[in-house]
Amino acid sequence: MRLAHLAAWKNGIMERKIRIGIAGLGVVGAHLARMIMQPTDELHDNFAGGIFAARAGEFDLSGICARDRTKDRGIDTSAIDWFDDPVDLAKSENIDVFVELIGGQEGPAADAVRAALEAGKHVVTANKALLAIHGRDLAMLAEANGVSIGYEAAVAGAVPIISTLKTMMAPCKIDRVVGILNGTCNYILSEMESTGAGFSAALGDAQAKGFAEADPALDIEGDDAAHKLALITSIAFGIWPDGMFAKHANSDARLFVQGIDHLGARDIEYTQRLGFRIRLLGVAENHKTTPGAPPSLTVEPFLVPVHHPLANATGPGNHITIEGAPIGKVSLAGPGAGGGPTASAVASDLLSLLNRQTGPVFGRPASDIAPVTLVQQSSQTARFYLRIAGVSDAGRVHETINMLTGTDKPSDAVENVAYEGEWAGLTGEISLKTLQKAREAFEESGCSVTTIRIAEF
Amino acid sequence: MRLAHLAAWKNGIMERKIRIGIAGLGVVGAHLARMIMQPTDELHDNFAGGIFAARAGEFDLSGICARDRTKDRGIDTSAIDWFDDPVDLAKSENIDVFVELIGGQEGPAADAVRAALEAGKHVVTANKALLAIHGRDLAMLAEANGVSIGYEAAVAGAVPIISTLKTMMAPCKIDRVVGILNGTCNYILSEMESTGAGFSAALGDAQAKGFAEADPALDIEGDDAAHKLALITSIAFGIWPDGMFAKHANSDARLFVQGIDHLGARDIEYTQRLGFRIRLLGVAENHKTTPGAPPSLTVEPFLVPVHHPLANATGPGNHITIEGAPIGKVSLAGPGAGGGPTASAVASDLLSLLNRQTGPVFGRPASDIAPVTLVQQSSQTARFYLRIAGVSDAGRVHETINMLTGTDKPSDAVENVAYEGEWAGLTGEISLKTLQKAREAFEESGCSVTTIRIAEF
Repeated sequence: MRLAHLAAWKNGIMERKIRIGIAGLGVVGAHLARMIMQPTDELHDNFAGGIFAARAGEFDLSGICARDRTKDRGIDTSAIDWFDDPVDLAKSENIDVFVELIGGQEGPAADAVRAALEAGKHVVTANKALLAIHGRDLAMLAEANGVSIGYEAAVAGAVPIISTLKTMMAPCKIDRVVGILNGTCNYILSEMESTGAGFSAALGDAQAKGFAEADPALDIEGDDAAHKLALITSIAFGIWPDGMFAKHANSDARLFVQGIDHLGARDIEYTQRLGFRIRLLGVAENHKTTPGAPPSLTVEPFLVPVHHPLANATGPGNHITIEGAPIGKVSLAGPGAGGGPTASAVASDLLSLLNRQTGPVFGRPASDIAPVTLVQQSSQTARFYLRIAGVSDAGRVHETINMLTGTDKPSDAVENVAYEGEWAGLTGEISLKTLQKAREAFEESGCSVTTIRIAEF
Repeated sequence: MRLAHLAAWKNGIMERKIRIGIAGLGVVGAHLARMIMQPTDELHDNFAGGIFAARAGEFDLSGICARDRTKDRGIDTSAIDWFDDPVDLAKSENIDVFVELIGGQEGPAADAVRAALEAGKHVVTANKALLAIHGRDLAMLAEANGVSIGYEAAVAGAVPIISTLKTMMAPCKIDRVVGILNGTCNYILSEMESTGAGFSAALGDAQAKGFAEADPALDIEGDDAAHKLALITSIAFGIWPDGMFAKHANSDARLFVQGIDHLGARDIEYTQRLGFRIRLLGVAENHKTTPGAPPSLTVEPFLVPVHHPLANATGPGNHITIEGAPIGKVSLAGPGAGGGPTASAVASDLLSLLNRQTGPVFGRPASDIAPVTLVQQSSQTARFYLRIAGVSDAGRVHETINMLTGTDKPSDAVENVAYEGEWAGLTGEISLKTLQKAREAFEESGCSVTTIRIAEF
């Protein structure tokens, strides 16, 4: 493949500044613009001392694009070329790098990114949805035009997961990546734990504090975490998880994507009493028994033991552990979202361009990243937390629980967390298929069932 | 500054393989050679699937150098040019990148690295001592010759601290870096905690298991951690900590470097009873009260609360937290040493070269990294753990303890951990100067004194 280059260099000498165009001047975009224009201004977050501040003079903010030109963003943009259409900015002859902070998997963001790549501009973006859906095609387009796509900001905010997977973990055969990838969900779960609040109250609190969007669906239903997991998977395993987001398809080929919006205060209480915390995790792991088989992927709530590092990750933070030979486990943790962290992650990609870091988008040539149809492993076994509510036929429920927990009588754990007309406890090692059958049996007898997998890592 | 380039590229096209020369074929060197020569051989650690394996064909192992040519290293090196002198390999016209795995701050390693840079070869090294002592000069030499120095393997093994400081944390004004930087010490402390063993027994165990060298001085006296902290400081704060290693100088300008070899089983026992664990930490932090003052640096054992993430880091792992605006805290953890992790870190630097990542050695031009004389802050205050043994004049010791703990009578904590003729407990907030005076007073009355600072982060 052709390696990317920037026109600012000639024969190893940087001849002029790197010209940046920013599309989207929300919290992140405005923050980034200030970082480039006023890098040492102590009034606005005090960047003095940072490497980026020391080298910001090598950048030139040449063009911007946003919906409202008159809005006060705390920066004087009057000397910068203004574009009403992001596609025009993307194609502008006066920029070298197009920074896309519009968002959305289709529409203006997608159009502008394609236009930028086709025009031979490097792209830096925080848009995980766009890349998770169209990333492989965009990577091919980037390669064909000799440019790169930086997206450190798209996954886990200020946690350096993309660069770590592409460099430090590159010599590893990755066995597993486990991550708290959505700060909104982690904040809500932490709040439910510490206050005893129900899901809706905790969500309302998260919205009031700016940790959740007005429309929280993408976060709380697990799709945002799934987008990030798809990108991680492409680098870590060198595959493109096709059909990853067809979660509503009634098919064995679907990826398992579940959010946290079905969890209640009772689940938090019971699982805590059983010694666990609930965390929404994205997990990608190699099949141990079938070499060459595609990795299994899931985004769902897990129970993790209370002393586990993932259980200790509270609030809106992200936490990711990568496991592979010959390194072993490497863990990364930090803020997963927010204007400052996200703008910093974008700025770090710009700095990499300044240092001519322009490797393949997913670590290897895009044509080597094979599309793979994932298969839900219904024969996979695990242990589960189980809450059965609205019990009418107690005897039958009891019997099924006994079968699932692998004991003659309900274990202490099960009894300990039972309310009137409700059972909750842990099953023995059972297959997903068995769990599904049990669930159907309970539901037929009028019970509602909540299941959460117990993490084995 | 001139940006580095590799002769293998021409006009953005890679025209031939990147030729690697490895000096030093110990555990790490032999591992690295196998990674390049047999990247997908499942017999030796199964690298298949890794990005490095997929791209190893873009490298060519062109030259090697080691002391003993006849030694069996599990790889066939007969087709590779053999050099008896690393300087000759460094200058060879048949290599693009010189990998230095000899070790030592002077001698052949230093000579060969200088020769390689002067000959316009990129250098990748795991040699923290060489870089901590001569890094700034070597960075200038590298810049003058348009080449780079990769040293991800020199600090914290497979924990991606160098790349994270140089990219993700680059837009931050760093407030503090705190790290468990020496796996040997952390293993020994963990062993003492879990087995109740004394220092010597735990060291012997570490040596038997390969976690400590036959001559462990560099590790257990804190110098190895200090070397790593110096490199971290240069990137994080943009300064060169001059006189950092003059720890034996009787001067206020010395850096505080203390190891763990003075700690006993009693210290582990007492501090555990007080709710703490002992961790050897490297800490670099900005002065909060004096803007523009150089950061304070220290390598010494600290008490950390038992539920603190640093307390949970056990065994030979490393754990580093970086704190700065506008990102907040980012934590990285993983194996800090070992053949596989270290070879992987070296390989990740090679991959960065393949992707043309060739920024400044410490993130900024070396001439911008100002040498700074560090000053020991004797007016700095902290709380301390104190153990006073061999007490002859109990009354006087009691009186001094009372003064230090800031109470009329010894606190419960002090009483709880006291044996016959021995006191141990926590002081109130006191200055280093006061602590030193108290120490002298105790020692004059024939007591031996152990002090450990309580971490406030």
